[in-house]
Amino acid sequence: MEVLKKYNTVLAQHLEKAVSKDEPKQLYDPIKYILSIGGKRVRPALTLLVCDFFDTDFNKAIPAALAVELFHNFSLIHDDIMDDSPLRRGKQTVHEKWDVNTGILSGDAMLILAYRFFEEYEPAIFKELAELFSETALQVCEGQQLDIDFETRDSVQISEYLKMIEQKTAVLLGAAMQMGAIVANASKKDKETMYEFGKNLGIAFQLQDDYLDVFGNPETFGKQVGGDIISNKKTFLYLMAEKRSTPSQAEELTHLFSINPTDPADKIKTVREIFIASKTAEDTRLEIEKYSNLAYSVLYEVNISEDKKELLRQFGKKLMERDV
Amino acid sequence: MEVLKKYNTVLAQHLEKAVSKDEPKQLYDPIKYILSIGGKRVRPALTLLVCDFFDTDFNKAIPAALAVELFHNFSLIHDDIMDDSPLRRGKQTVHEKWDVNTGILSGDAMLILAYRFFEEYEPAIFKELAELFSETALQVCEGQQLDIDFETRDSVQISEYLKMIEQKTAVLLGAAMQMGAIVANASKKDKETMYEFGKNLGIAFQLQDDYLDVFGNPETFGKQVGGDIISNKKTFLYLMAEKRSTPSQAEELTHLFSINPTDPADKIKTVREIFIASKTAEDTRLEIEKYSNLAYSVLYEVNISEDKKELLRQFGKKLMERDV
Repeated sequence: MEVLKKYNTVLAQHLEKAVSKDEPKQLYDPIKYILSIGGKRVRPALTLLVCDFFDTDFNKAIPAALAVELFHNFSLIHDDIMDDSPLRRGKQTVHEKWDVNTGILSGDAMLILAYRFFEEYEPAIFKELAELFSETALQVCEGQQLDIDFETRDSVQISEYLKMIEQKTAVLLGAAMQMGAIVANASKKDKETMYEFGKNLGIAFQLQDDYLDVFGNPETFGKQVGGDIISNKKTFLYLMAEKRSTPSQAEELTHLFSINPTDPADKIKTVREIFIASKTAEDTRLEIEKYSNLAYSVLYEVNISEDKKELLRQFGKKLMERDV
Repeated sequence: MEVLKKYNTVLAQHLEKAVSKDEPKQLYDPIKYILSIGGKRVRPALTLLVCDFFDTDFNKAIPAALAVELFHNFSLIHDDIMDDSPLRRGKQTVHEKWDVNTGILSGDAMLILAYRFFEEYEPAIFKELAELFSETALQVCEGQQLDIDFETRDSVQISEYLKMIEQKTAVLLGAAMQMGAIVANASKKDKETMYEFGKNLGIAFQLQDDYLDVFGNPETFGKQVGGDIISNKKTFLYLMAEKRSTPSQAEELTHLFSINPTDPADKIKTVREIFIASKTAEDTRLEIEKYSNLAYSVLYEVNISEDKKELLRQFGKKLMERDV
């Protein structure tokens, strides 16, 4: 997305030299590897953008942005071990390329390295950033644990699912934006509002991710469409369908989410039909709209120009369309 | 040890309620479990003692002490996964009692929780503590990586081995003591000196650990005597013997450290004899003395009373005798 381009260029330069140490190689090589295989860098770019929007040189926010990106990549390394994922961004995961122990230890070092970037700031800002970071990081761990718990639980409430995606995904987007506002010395109210904007957009984004898994365009989604259905993952749509569908639809759904056919095409097709017939698809779109609008509505209160607010709304829309 | 008793009593009370959150249980139960199965709490007790010795209410240092203890236990959880250890302090390790994923995630949360204890301090102290903590934590990761690397390397220099134990074990003892001095607002010089005292004592302690593995009293050592020999671990004594022994002794040693006999009694006996005959045992004792004396000598420069210095020396001796 155009508005993030200038930040991404700067970030790429800084990420390349973000980890200056080389030895022990087995510890630092995996960190450099995961940082080198990319990702869209949306979170750290938002840290810079928010700082910029509060009329402060965005270069001042680079250490905070790097901390956010290192934390995010730390969580990917450890999550990939837990999920036993062979690939990340189309490349081998760290524990596949090296081994599980290397993934654990390099991840640990990466989390510590993330904290160290805040040392660039004077004590009051350092403390404010590190506190927000720790609280957010702990929520991400809790969200990951809930996600694991839900896999083996018979019944999950929609409210619990929303809490899980808020913690696992959305709070880091909120924190990334708030950090930009902290570095720019924005008011308490503005800092909180930027957090709320990012968090609600993050929830909408994750719900949209669930939706696109079923109804997305394989060309632009970036992941395998139907992947959640194949792996019997209880996404927002599944939980909503449990409530919305007729008894016979619900029974079929339960059955379909207990099997692993070699060719999943029919299963995906039937699940998709139930999601449409039960109005689950429609309800999901409404829920996505609700959280997007919640994000946009808090913007009214922020002390930045109308042009900048419009850019944030545009960014939100592009993010939903996977076009950033 | 008498001098640490009063701190240990206070620590036990605070550790019990150090982690106030309960949910998700799978995340927090393992943290409470590892904290509940004890350990000697030497590091956090030293944080309190040093604060006390600089004439500051030691209760002020409790959050810093808790951070040290949580970090130490985090590293135990992750190290036990990497070493595939079934037992810790005579109880099941976290990954054995739960599973590897639980150990990874609970460990991560514990590292983050450790940072959060520093939030009790005002910004300047918070920053000073968190910086020391991050630097130390990263060194512990590097030390753990070196330890892993050495297992598969043909040749390890004694200087490299000393660097490894310094990072893996000793710097945390130094940092624990420096944190007490930071909280007490000691001078820069005194803070650095307390760190040096703890670090050198930590190196002596680890060398003594290597020594007692071969020559220790099974009644007081607390671990299986000969354990390092059984697992063919290249400790300080092995590396020293490589240099000190005759060609035929060296050859026998290389052979013995490549086999895994069902009954290891003869192997242990022969290794022990080579360590004595080659004067490796004696050299190791001298090296331990060197680092102990280095620790005691820096004490001359510290601005605390002679009585307190004497207590620190006594503590050092007790620690070497495994009597704390």
